[in-house]
Amino acid sequence: MTTASAPSSTPVGPTPVLRTAYQKAVADYWNDEKDPVNLRLGDVDGLYHHHYGLGDYDPAVLEGPADTRDARIIEEMHRLESAQAEVLLDHLGPIAPGHRLLDAGCGRGGTSIMANLRFGCEVDGVSISEAQVEFANGQARKRGVDDKVRYHFRNMLDTGFPTGAFQGIWNNESTMYVDLFELFGEHARQLAYGGRYVCITGCYNDVTGGRSKAVSRIDEHYTCNIHPRSAYFKAMAANGLVPINVVDLTAATIPYWELRAKSSVATGVEEPFLTAYKEGSFHYLLIAADRI
Amino acid sequence: MTTASAPSSTPVGPTPVLRTAYQKAVADYWNDEKDPVNLRLGDVDGLYHHHYGLGDYDPAVLEGPADTRDARIIEEMHRLESAQAEVLLDHLGPIAPGHRLLDAGCGRGGTSIMANLRFGCEVDGVSISEAQVEFANGQARKRGVDDKVRYHFRNMLDTGFPTGAFQGIWNNESTMYVDLFELFGEHARQLAYGGRYVCITGCYNDVTGGRSKAVSRIDEHYTCNIHPRSAYFKAMAANGLVPINVVDLTAATIPYWELRAKSSVATGVEEPFLTAYKEGSFHYLLIAADRI
Amino acid sequence: MTTASAPSSTPVGPTPVLRTAYQKAVADYWNDEKDPVNLRLGDVDGLYHHHYGLGDYDPAVLEGPADTRDARIIEEMHRLESAQAEVLLDHLGPIAPGHRLLDAGCGRGGTSIMANLRFGCEVDGVSISEAQVEFANGQARKRGVDDKVRYHFRNMLDTGFPTGAFQGIWNNESTMYVDLFELFGEHARQLAYGGRYVCITGCYNDVTGGRSKAVSRIDEHYTCNIHPRSAYFKAMAANGLVPINVVDLTAATIPYWELRAKSSVATGVEEPFLTAYKEGSFHYLLIAADRI
Amino acid sequence: MTTASAPSSTPVGPTPVLRTAYQKAVADYWNDEKDPVNLRLGDVDGLYHHHYGLGDYDPAVLEGPADTRDARIIEEMHRLESAQAEVLLDHLGPIAPGHRLLDAGCGRGGTSIMANLRFGCEVDGVSISEAQVEFANGQARKRGVDDKVRYHFRNMLDTGFPTGAFQGIWNNESTMYVDLFELFGEHARQLAYGGRYVCITGCYNDVTGGRSKAVSRIDEHYTCNIHPRSAYFKAMAANGLVPINVVDLTAATIPYWELRAKSSVATGVEEPFLTAYKEGSFHYLLIAADRI
Amino acid sequence: MTTASAPSSTPVGPTPVLRTAYQKAVADYWNDEKDPVNLRLGDVDGLYHHHYGLGDYDPAVLEGPADTRDARIIEEMHRLESAQAEVLLDHLGPIAPGHRLLDAGCGRGGTSIMANLRFGCEVDGVSISEAQVEFANGQARKRGVDDKVRYHFRNMLDTGFPTGAFQGIWNNESTMYVDLFELFGEHARQLAYGGRYVCITGCYNDVTGGRSKAVSRIDEHYTCNIHPRSAYFKAMAANGLVPINVVDLTAATIPYWELRAKSSVATGVEEPFLTAYKEGSFHYLLIAADRI
Amino acid sequence: MTTASAPSSTPVGPTPVLRTAYQKAVADYWNDEKDPVNLRLGDVDGLYHHHYGLGDYDPAVLEGPADTRDARIIEEMHRLESAQAEVLLDHLGPIAPGHRLLDAGCGRGGTSIMANLRFGCEVDGVSISEAQVEFANGQARKRGVDDKVRYHFRNMLDTGFPTGAFQGIWNNESTMYVDLFELFGEHARQLAYGGRYVCITGCYNDVTGGRSKAVSRIDEHYTCNIHPRSAYFKAMAANGLVPINVVDLTAATIPYWELRAKSSVATGVEEPFLTAYKEGSFHYLLIAADRI
Repeated sequence: MTTASAPSSTPVGPTPVLRTAYQKAVADYWNDEKDPVNLRLGDVDGLYHHHYGLGDYDPAVLEGPADTRDARIIEEMHRLESAQAEVLLDHLGPIAPGHRLLDAGCGRGGTSIMANLRFGCEVDGVSISEAQVEFANGQARKRGVDDKVRYHFRNMLDTGFPTGAFQGIWNNESTMYVDLFELFGEHARQLAYGGRYVCITGCYNDVTGGRSKAVSRIDEHYTCNIHPRSAYFKAMAANGLVPINVVDLTAATIPYWELRAKSSVATGVEEPFLTAYKEGSFHYLLIAADRI
Repeated sequence: MTTASAPSSTPVGPTPVLRTAYQKAVADYWNDEKDPVNLRLGDVDGLYHHHYGLGDYDPAVLEGPADTRDARIIEEMHRLESAQAEVLLDHLGPIAPGHRLLDAGCGRGGTSIMANLRFGCEVDGVSISEAQVEFANGQARKRGVDDKVRYHFRNMLDTGFPTGAFQGIWNNESTMYVDLFELFGEHARQLAYGGRYVCITGCYNDVTGGRSKAVSRIDEHYTCNIHPRSAYFKAMAANGLVPINVVDLTAATIPYWELRAKSSVATGVEEPFLTAYKEGSFHYLLIAADRI
Repeated sequence: MTTASAPSSTPVGPTPVLRTAYQKAVADYWNDEKDPVNLRLGDVDGLYHHHYGLGDYDPAVLEGPADTRDARIIEEMHRLESAQAEVLLDHLGPIAPGHRLLDAGCGRGGTSIMANLRFGCEVDGVSISEAQVEFANGQARKRGVDDKVRYHFRNMLDTGFPTGAFQGIWNNESTMYVDLFELFGEHARQLAYGGRYVCITGCYNDVTGGRSKAVSRIDEHYTCNIHPRSAYFKAMAANGLVPINVVDLTAATIPYWELRAKSSVATGVEEPFLTAYKEGSFHYLLIAADRI
Repeated sequence: MTTASAPSSTPVGPTPVLRTAYQKAVADYWNDEKDPVNLRLGDVDGLYHHHYGLGDYDPAVLEGPADTRDARIIEEMHRLESAQAEVLLDHLGPIAPGHRLLDAGCGRGGTSIMANLRFGCEVDGVSISEAQVEFANGQARKRGVDDKVRYHFRNMLDTGFPTGAFQGIWNNESTMYVDLFELFGEHARQLAYGGRYVCITGCYNDVTGGRSKAVSRIDEHYTCNIHPRSAYFKAMAANGLVPINVVDLTAATIPYWELRAKSSVATGVEEPFLTAYKEGSFHYLLIAADRI
Repeated sequence: MTTASAPSSTPVGPTPVLRTAYQKAVADYWNDEKDPVNLRLGDVDGLYHHHYGLGDYDPAVLEGPADTRDARIIEEMHRLESAQAEVLLDHLGPIAPGHRLLDAGCGRGGTSIMANLRFGCEVDGVSISEAQVEFANGQARKRGVDDKVRYHFRNMLDTGFPTGAFQGIWNNESTMYVDLFELFGEHARQLAYGGRYVCITGCYNDVTGGRSKAVSRIDEHYTCNIHPRSAYFKAMAANGLVPINVVDLTAATIPYWELRAKSSVATGVEEPFLTAYKEGSFHYLLIAADRI
Repeated sequence: MTTASAPSSTPVGPTPVLRTAYQKAVADYWNDEKDPVNLRLGDVDGLYHHHYGLGDYDPAVLEGPADTRDARIIEEMHRLESAQAEVLLDHLGPIAPGHRLLDAGCGRGGTSIMANLRFGCEVDGVSISEAQVEFANGQARKRGVDDKVRYHFRNMLDTGFPTGAFQGIWNNESTMYVDLFELFGEHARQLAYGGRYVCITGCYNDVTGGRSKAVSRIDEHYTCNIHPRSAYFKAMAANGLVPINVVDLTAATIPYWELRAKSSVATGVEEPFLTAYKEGSFHYLLIAADRI
C-alpha cells in the first residue's frame, strides 16, 4: 500500500507556562510588583505573603510615638497575615513528614515555608511569575530548607507534577486568576485519593447578584476575575472535591483592611474591599474539601 | 373535521402523600413509634425532638442518688438535643416576624416551636406520619401558638406550598429518607430568592468508601438510606443552593451518644453510631446554603 | 384525621422586578443617567439609543467650521448607531405586521421604534429603569405609535409575557447585565417555535484568556459583567437556540469609538474600548439564532 | 409611576398540532396513504395495524390453490401483526379496568382496540393524521367501544393530556418520527408514578456504525428518522424511565418480512428491511420501562 | 533563569489495590469467608461459585433417605448456580478462541473456568481478596488451564489491563461493592469496540422507593451497597454501553432461595432475600450491553 | 503472596483505521468512486475536489458552440468549487509557514494543495479511502510539494497525530460521515490552544423539523448521516470550540447545483439538493471556531 510515511516529526514542544495574553499580563504584573505592603511586611520575619489578614488588630499600634507608629502597624498587619496562613494550614488535616504538599500560586513563598515548619514535609510552590519564584527560592536557601521547599515557574493549571503525588494542596488567594473547573481538574489529578484541598479566597455573593462596582474595582486593580461563590461549589462537585468545612471569614478580615487603610502601605484597593465586604456583595471564604 | 371529543375527564386526583411502598413503610414506622428516647426526653419541657444532641454532657449526672440518675440523664440528653436545634437555628440568618419558615420532616415538632419562640414568625412543619402531625399540632395548641405553628400531613418532596414562600427551610435529620436531588429541587422552588437552607444530617464518608457495616446497621434500624457526603454538595450545586457554612459536628455529637448508651432509653443503635463516627466512616454535618 | 388546616394564605406577591442589590444598582445607574452621548445623539431625530455604532465615519465631519464641528460629529455618531440597529434588524428574518417583537433591555427605546417603522408590527420593550421606560413611552406617544410600541418596567429574566408569544427577540448591548443561561431560558420560553433571536454584544475573548484590564475597566464603568464569547454559545446550546449567523463586527465598530474619542460627548470609556478591541481581548459580535 | 399598561392581549393560540414542515409532510403522507398492506390486512378482522409481525409464518399458506393464495398470505401476515401487538401488551404489566392507557402514534387504531379488549380499560390514541383519527374513531363506533376507546388529532410530543393520568403508554413503531428526548419527556409527564412504558421499534445498531444504506432507504421510504439504539437508553435515563425488559425481536420479525416480500401487497421496502436486519445494522427491539 | 530544578522524584507508587477502608473491609470479609454454602457446593464438581441459582429445583431432593438429603440439596443448589452462570455466558455473544474475557469480581473463579470450557479462550479474573485469587489459581492449575485462565489480585475499578483488550466482560453479582459510574468507565476502557458486557445482579426497585428494610439487611450482611435499578442504566448511558437484552430473573431465582432456606448451609440471609423479592422491592436482573 | 503473574501479553494491536461496518462501506464507496464530476473537474488544473461550489456561474457557458459547451460547464463548475475552497481558507485566520494544518476527510486532496500554495506551510490530509490517499499523494509528488503536503490512510476520529500540533483544522464536507462529538473531541485534542477550526457542511434545519425526504435521499446517495444544524453547536460547546463566524452559504451554492443539473456530469443527486435547499430543510453552512 502506498500511504504516506508517518507525519513529519515537527517537534511539538511542551505547552508553555504562559499560554495566553491574559496570563502574560498577570505574570508581568507580579514580576514588576514591589509593593511595600508585600515587601515591608515580609521583611518583619522573612515570611513574604501575598494574602490578607485575619483577626482583630491591637488598637494600641495606632497610638504612641509617631516615629515608630508605621513600624508598629506593619508588624501588626504581618501578624494578621501570618495568622491567616495558620488558619489555612489548620484545615489541611493530619500531614506527616513523608507527605508532599503543593502551594498553588505561591507568590513569594511565605505559606510554603510555614507549612514546612509545621509539618516537616516537602512543599512545592508554583507561580507564573519568574521573579517571585526566584525570590522564594532565595528565601528557602537562606533558611536552609531548599532541600524540602522548592518553588517552580509553572502554571497551576498544568503543573507537570505526577498524578496522585500530593496529600494536600492549597490556593491562598490565587484562584481568581484562573478558571475553577480547569484548576480543580488539575488539583484532583494531583491529589492522592483522600487528600485534602484548602482555599481561602474572596468571592462575590450570588445573592446580591452580579459583580458590584466595588468588586469590579478589585478585579481591575489586580487584573483578576473574582468568581461568584457558587462557582467554587459547582467546580468542586464536578471534580471529586467534597467540602468538609466552609467558613465565612468576612467579619474576621475586615479589621485587617481597616488597619491597612490607615497604614503607610495602603495601595488604594482598601476602599473597594471594605465597601464590598460591608455591603455584602463579597465574602472572604475558606473551603476545605476531600479528594474522592 | 371528525376528531374525537376532548379526552374524558376521568378525575385525576392529587398525588397522594405516600407515593411508594417505601414511604408507606417509613410512615408506618413513625406512626407506631413510641420510643422513650423521644417521648421521655420531650416530656422534660414539652419540646419533642427526633434528632441527636451536641456538646459535652455534665459527667455529674452519672453520679449521685441512683433513684434520680435516670431522670438526670434524660434531662441532660434533652438539653443536648435542644442545644443541637439551637445550633441549627443559629444558621438561618436574620429572620423577621413577617417571614415564613418550613420544617421539612418535622417529627413531633420541637424545632418548629423553638423557631417560633426565637423569631416570632410563622412556621410550617411537614411529616408523612399522621400520628406525628396530630401530636405536634396538639402541642402547638397547648402552647397557644397554633395560629403561627402548623403541622401538615404532607410529603416534603411535594408539599403543595406556594413557590418562593419561605425565607428559611431546614431538615433536622430527615434527609436520609429521600432523594436529595428531588428534595433540594422542591426546597429551591419554595425558598424566596436569597432565602436560607440549613440541614443537620449524618452522612457517610466518601473517603472511607461505600457504606460501612456500621452505617448499614443504622440504615436497617431506621429503614433509611444514608447518603454519602458528596451527594449533598452535588444536589445543592444542581439546585441553586450555595453553601456559606459547613461544620463538621462529629466530635461534638459523640458525647451525646456515649451518654445515651449509658441511659435507660438506649435503643441499641448507639453502638453502630459510635463505631461509625469513631472509625471515620460517618460524619455529623451541618450545611447552611443560600438560594440563588 | 386531625392534620392542620391548609397552610395560611399569607399572600405571596409577584416576584419584584428588581430582585437583587446588583439589579437595584444597575437600575439606579440608568435612572440617573443623563449622558449627552445618549441624549444629544437621540435629539438628532428622536431615536434614542444606548448602543454603539457601525461603519466608517465621514472624516469630513472633523474638518470645517469649528462652531458646527461638534454638531457634525454628534450627527455622524448618531448615523453610525442607527446603522448598527439596522444591521441588527436585518438579521431578524421575515417579520410580518401580525408578528410581535421583544426588545430586551430597551433603554430609551430607539431600536423598538425602528423595528415598528420597518415591519409595522407590535413591539414590546422592557427595562429595569423606570426612567427609561417613562421616557421611551413618551417618545412612542409623540410619534403616535403607542398603540403598537409599548415599554414596560420589567425584568428581562422574568418578563411575565406569555409563552411562545414572540416571533423575534433581541438584546442590543444589554446581555452583560445578566446571567446568559437564565436570559436565554426566558427568551426560549417567550419565542414561538422557529422564532429568531438576535444579539449584538461586546464579549471578551476566551483565546486571550480571562478579563483583561481594559475589559475590567468597562465592567467597572457600567457596573456590568462582560461575558466570554464561549458563554453565549454554551447558553444557547443549552436553551434550544441554534445560530444561523455569527458576525465579528469588531473592525466595523472601531471607527465609531475613534470618532467618539474626539467628540465633546466622550465619557472616558472610549480608551478601554479601543484598547480592548485592538489588543484582541474583546470582540463586538452579532449572533442570530433560531428557536427550536 | 408611568410604565405602560399590561402587554397587549394579542391572543396566543394553542400550539398547533402540526408544528413543523416535517410534521406536515408526515401527516400528508399518512392522510393520503391507502396501502393495501395496511388496509387489506385490517379487513381480515377489523383490527387495522401499522406495524410489522412477529413469529414464524405457516409455510402452508404459500402452497395450495393459487386463487386463494393471496388471501391466505394476507391472513397469515395479519396474524403475525396481531401477535406483535399481543407481545407489546404482554409487557404493560397488570392493568386494571379503572386504569387509562395511551397509544402514542396510534395509526388506524388496532392496538388500542386490542388493549381495550384485553384490559377493559379506557384507551386514548393520538395521531397527527386526521384521516387516521377519523378512520379509527369510526372503527371504535362500529365495535361499540367508542365510550372507552377514543382517538385524537394531537401531537404525541404535546398531547394536552393531564399530568400523571396514564398507567401505561406505548409507541408501536412510531418513535422514528420524533426526537426521543422530547417524546420521553412528554411520556414521563403523562405517566403515573410507577406506570409502564413500552415501545417496539426498529433502531439502527451503534456497533455497526452510522445509518447504513439500507437504513437510509427505509428512512427515505417513510420520511422518518430511525434512531440509533443508544438514543433510546440515553433519552430514557434522562427522563425517569427505567428499563425492566429489553428484548431483541430481530430474528422473530424476519419471517414476516420474508412472507411479505412474497405477497401481493409488498411495497418495495421489504428488501431494505431484510438487508438491514440480516447485515446486523438494524434491530427490532422491545423496551419496557417503569416511570420513576 | 533561576527556577528550581525539577520536582523531587519522590517515588509515587502505583495506586494500591485496596484504596479505601471500605475496600479493606470487603477484602477482609472475603479473605476470611469459609461459608459452606460456597465451599461445599463447589466441592461437588470443582466449580466454586459466589452467586445464586436460577430455575426450579427438583422437589424430589427434599424427600427420600435422611442421611443423603443434605447432599442431594447441596448438589441441586449447585446445579442451579451453574445454570445461572450458563445463562450469563449465553449473553456474551459469539466468542472465538482468540478472544479474551474478563471476570470482574471473580470470587473463587467458577464462572471463568466455565467460560474457558465453553469458548476455549483466555479468561482473566480479578478479585480484591488475595485468598480467593490464590484459591482460584490453584483450581486452574488443578484443571490444567492455568495457561488460559488466570486470576489476579486487582481492583476492578482500576485493573491495569490494556485498553480495548477484551471482547467480553462480566460481573456476576459483584457490582454492589462499587460505584457503577467508575466501574462502567473502566469496563468501557477495557472492552474492544463492539465488545459485550453482561451483568447479573440484585438491584432495588426505584418504583417501590428507597432501600427497604429487607434490602438493608442484605447490605448489612455482605457490607455491600445494593444499587437502584435506575443506576445501572444511567451509568451505562454515560459510558458507551448500550443494552441489547434486559431480563428480569426474579421469578426464576426464588426457587433457589426457597431450597437454600431448607438446607443445612443456610446463612440467615435467605429470609431478607425472599422477602425483598416477593414484596417487589428487589429484582434479580440480567443486562447485556454493547460497547460503542 | 501467590497472585498470578502479569496478564498475558497478547499483543493488542493499534485500533484499526476502519472500525465499523459503516466505515468499511464508506471506504468501499470512495475507493470505487470514479465520478466524472470529481475527476473531470479536477483534470482542469490538477486540483481534485470532493465538495460543491460557491458563487454565481457565468451564464455564457451555457451558450455558444455545442462541441465545447460541456468543457465550458466543467471548467466553470471547477472554478466555483475552487472558490468554495478559497472561502474556507479565508476563515483560517493568520497562518504562518511554520504552522501545521490538518485536512480532515481530504478526498483527492485539492484543498490541502491550495492551503500549501497560499500559506507555504505543512498540510496533512487524512482519508479512510486508500485509493484517495494514494491518488492525492501522487498529485503532491507531481507538484513537487510532497515534502510539505502528505496524505494519510487514517480515521479522522483517531488520527494518531500529536496533541496540540495543528494551528488550523478543517472539514470540507466530510462531517456527515461521523459523530460530531467524537470528531470535535479529536480536533480539540489536536489543535493548539487558540487554533482555528473551520467546516463547510450541509446540515438539515431543526426549524423545519426532522430529515426531510430530500435530505434522506442525499443520505442514501452517499451512505452518509447529515446532522441537524443544532448538533454542530452542541458538539462545539462540549469540546472547547467557540464560533467566531457562522455564514449561511445556502443562497451562494444554489447556482452551482443549477449549473451541475444542466451538465453532462450530473449524478442524479442534484434534484434532492436543490429541493432541500429551496424548501428550507437544508442549509449550506460555514462555521469558524477557536480552540480554547
